[in-house]
Amino acid sequence: MIKMLKKIKLSTPKGTRDFLPEEMIMRQEVLDKIRSIFELFGFSPIETPAIENFEILSAKDAGGEEILKETYNFEDKAGRKIGLRYDLTVPLARVVAMNPGLNLPFKRYQIQNVWRYGDVAKARLREFLQADIDIVGSDSMLADAEVISCACFTLESLGIKNFIVRINNRKILSSIVKSAGVEEEMVIDVLRSIDKLDKIGINGVKKELIEKGFKENVVEKILDFIKICGEPEEVVKNVEDILKKSGGCKDGIDEIKMLIEYLKKMDVKNFKIDLSLARGLDYYTGPIFEVFAEEGIGSIAAGGRYDKLISIFSGKEIPATGISLGVERLIEVMKDRKLLKLKKSKTKVFVVCVKENVENVIEIVKILRKNNIPTDFDFRARKLTKQLEYADSLGIRYVVIIGPNEIKNKKVKIRDMLKREEREIEIEKIVDFFKKYNL
Amino acid sequence: MIKMLKKIKLSTPKGTRDFLPEEMIMRQEVLDKIRSIFELFGFSPIETPAIENFEILSAKDAGGEEILKETYNFEDKAGRKIGLRYDLTVPLARVVAMNPGLNLPFKRYQIQNVWRYGDVAKARLREFLQADIDIVGSDSMLADAEVISCACFTLESLGIKNFIVRINNRKILSSIVKSAGVEEEMVIDVLRSIDKLDKIGINGVKKELIEKGFKENVVEKILDFIKICGEPEEVVKNVEDILKKSGGCKDGIDEIKMLIEYLKKMDVKNFKIDLSLARGLDYYTGPIFEVFAEEGIGSIAAGGRYDKLISIFSGKEIPATGISLGVERLIEVMKDRKLLKLKKSKTKVFVVCVKENVENVIEIVKILRKNNIPTDFDFRARKLTKQLEYADSLGIRYVVIIGPNEIKNKKVKIRDMLKREEREIEIEKIVDFFKKYNL
Repeated sequence: MIKMLKKIKLSTPKGTRDFLPEEMIMRQEVLDKIRSIFELFGFSPIETPAIENFEILSAKDAGGEEILKETYNFEDKAGRKIGLRYDLTVPLARVVAMNPGLNLPFKRYQIQNVWRYGDVAKARLREFLQADIDIVGSDSMLADAEVISCACFTLESLGIKNFIVRINNRKILSSIVKSAGVEEEMVIDVLRSIDKLDKIGINGVKKELIEKGFKENVVEKILDFIKICGEPEEVVKNVEDILKKSGGCKDGIDEIKMLIEYLKKMDVKNFKIDLSLARGLDYYTGPIFEVFAEEGIGSIAAGGRYDKLISIFSGKEIPATGISLGVERLIEVMKDRKLLKLKKSKTKVFVVCVKENVENVIEIVKILRKNNIPTDFDFRARKLTKQLEYADSLGIRYVVIIGPNEIKNKKVKIRDMLKREEREIEIEKIVDFFKKYNL
Repeated sequence: MIKMLKKIKLSTPKGTRDFLPEEMIMRQEVLDKIRSIFELFGFSPIETPAIENFEILSAKDAGGEEILKETYNFEDKAGRKIGLRYDLTVPLARVVAMNPGLNLPFKRYQIQNVWRYGDVAKARLREFLQADIDIVGSDSMLADAEVISCACFTLESLGIKNFIVRINNRKILSSIVKSAGVEEEMVIDVLRSIDKLDKIGINGVKKELIEKGFKENVVEKILDFIKICGEPEEVVKNVEDILKKSGGCKDGIDEIKMLIEYLKKMDVKNFKIDLSLARGLDYYTGPIFEVFAEEGIGSIAAGGRYDKLISIFSGKEIPATGISLGVERLIEVMKDRKLLKLKKSKTKVFVVCVKENVENVIEIVKILRKNNIPTDFDFRARKLTKQLEYADSLGIRYVVIIGPNEIKNKKVKIRDMLKREEREIEIEKIVDFFKKYNL
């Protein structure tokens, strides 16, 4: 009788991927660096569950309808509706609402995966890592400048040099849209279309807005406004003049002026005011920002102020602002710019092991590890050449060989795989030998 | 008109929780330590997606039916069946099957969340962190001894001293069950009941087995066998004698003997052979092990050999073994034993900020951060006392105060919050001052 095995399709779910050691070692280096800069800026870590009650994710004025289309949601075994989080901001707002005793301002960072069921492309996955910093409990533009400056400092520390921060303000953008003749409650709908500018181009946005029912002259007025560019102060002056006719936008203008001033003081030089920046999520209320890597990949960090989001959950308005670094994209940029060195293993010493000397091998491995030297040995009793090949393929630099002669003389052979050199040393000196190389 | 706001229930899904800074800083310290020990033992990191195709999770002889009852699974928007992973072993087996070019033995570690929809209790959550090490591609008991010894070394490095490793072997356990008169294909069903011993007691297991249709005398014979205890070598001798009558279990006995020998060589002393240990997952084929913290919480690490699992996915048998540390339980044990120090923030310096001196504050904050001193400042222009209270509540030791007089003299005041001392120093000496304290 032939046993028929159902063939299992070997893959990860679409838009997700595995990270093997070479990639993971490099990712950990990047993440450790990010973490250390966030802490240097006084941010403290939190983590929240991957799953949230769907009621939280879908709360009115939280992420909004566009993002909900991309949210993984399902019922648990008790029939409760839950979903995988689509960002780290809504969970933060929930945490703040649930912990009224938190010391404000609350500066938190959070480095965790989010899930979005969107189009899959290079460095655009359905499970991806975000590194967020937020300041909860301050309405000062100092807080917005601080998160932007921390993001820039992080990128620079990672060696990423050519990037630009695009800055806009939701209050100004709303005033522009309203001044063109759009009703208050339709503004967000216009912003959602403008947000697609990079993806579908100005004609695409125009088409979509007209399809949504906005008049052509209104649409054209809006699109003319958001084209304005130049030096930050110039753009602000320009906008101020235009908006004066329709009642102005004092709060927005004051905010953007203060932000420009603080950013300059904080040595953030590579920023511009970009009136076409809209950001897709509903919850933004003030400054919004996006960091663009110059060549290629586009947005690598983005965020903004969301002064109303926490009140959805707590009833109490607590101002907040933050920025999210897209780790996958950041790593793509670093790869493109050759800023990353690949390593297959962090092991420094490999001890050759044949059946006859297992006891001695274990002894030496124990001593090295106790002295904090990352050490591995062979489990397969392979031939010497196979074991050397294995160590070499993992990029392990030093191989220790204990032959029968060596045991007699209480010595081991140490082979430097890089220099292709071998030397004999006394067993009792092995730790000192490697310590000298500062492994 | 009164606007009726639907009240949103503020909670995380049942069995999940948030980790606020105090807890997270402590968790990170524990995880960094675990990671460094895993690397010291030559393990390399991988990560896999939270979601897996359900076909992988539910493959025959993978986790098995008990665990599938506890698996979160759902359909994505394209109707594909996916689930949240319930362990890190099945994903590893898939990774190995998908990457035939991997260098064997493949020593990997993986520290990620898993999800199980089970009963909720203290340190028993539905989303919890596992830290796994596995060796793929070696059938030597050296590999099993290595993962056990690495787990013990990790626990000891974390300061956990009183624990015991319980060891059994699925081959021996199967032989015992078969020798009592159970058919081959029913063995796993018996093991699943034995696995509940700690939870439901010996009478509970007996009752369940009889309900499953096993004869009382068969059940009693099995339960008598698994009670055997004593010194490792004694127990093995005893089992060997008993199994001789029913054809023996050479492979299992050889394995357990070798494992005992290697564990002793590796200085793992606190282990015992426990024939009642069964482990709930279907995929185990040889040695199985569990690490128990002596007082209280029970199992803090567990694992075993699974020589057939990878072949389910690849068709090719590749032996493998591994152990999983339950991070939540480990941290509970460390808390109970007062091994953890709580910190609310890692920030070392707080710079008092009032509206008039924002410029100077930003200047000093920049200098400190550039010199790698974790620094924060005030965004709210609060009163001096409020700012001092804030710094104190976060446990930040040093506060820098820049008053109008100080600016004139190019000096700042530094307040040591611990010693309640204040001193004045020149601005240009501030970095040297803090460097001296090795912040």
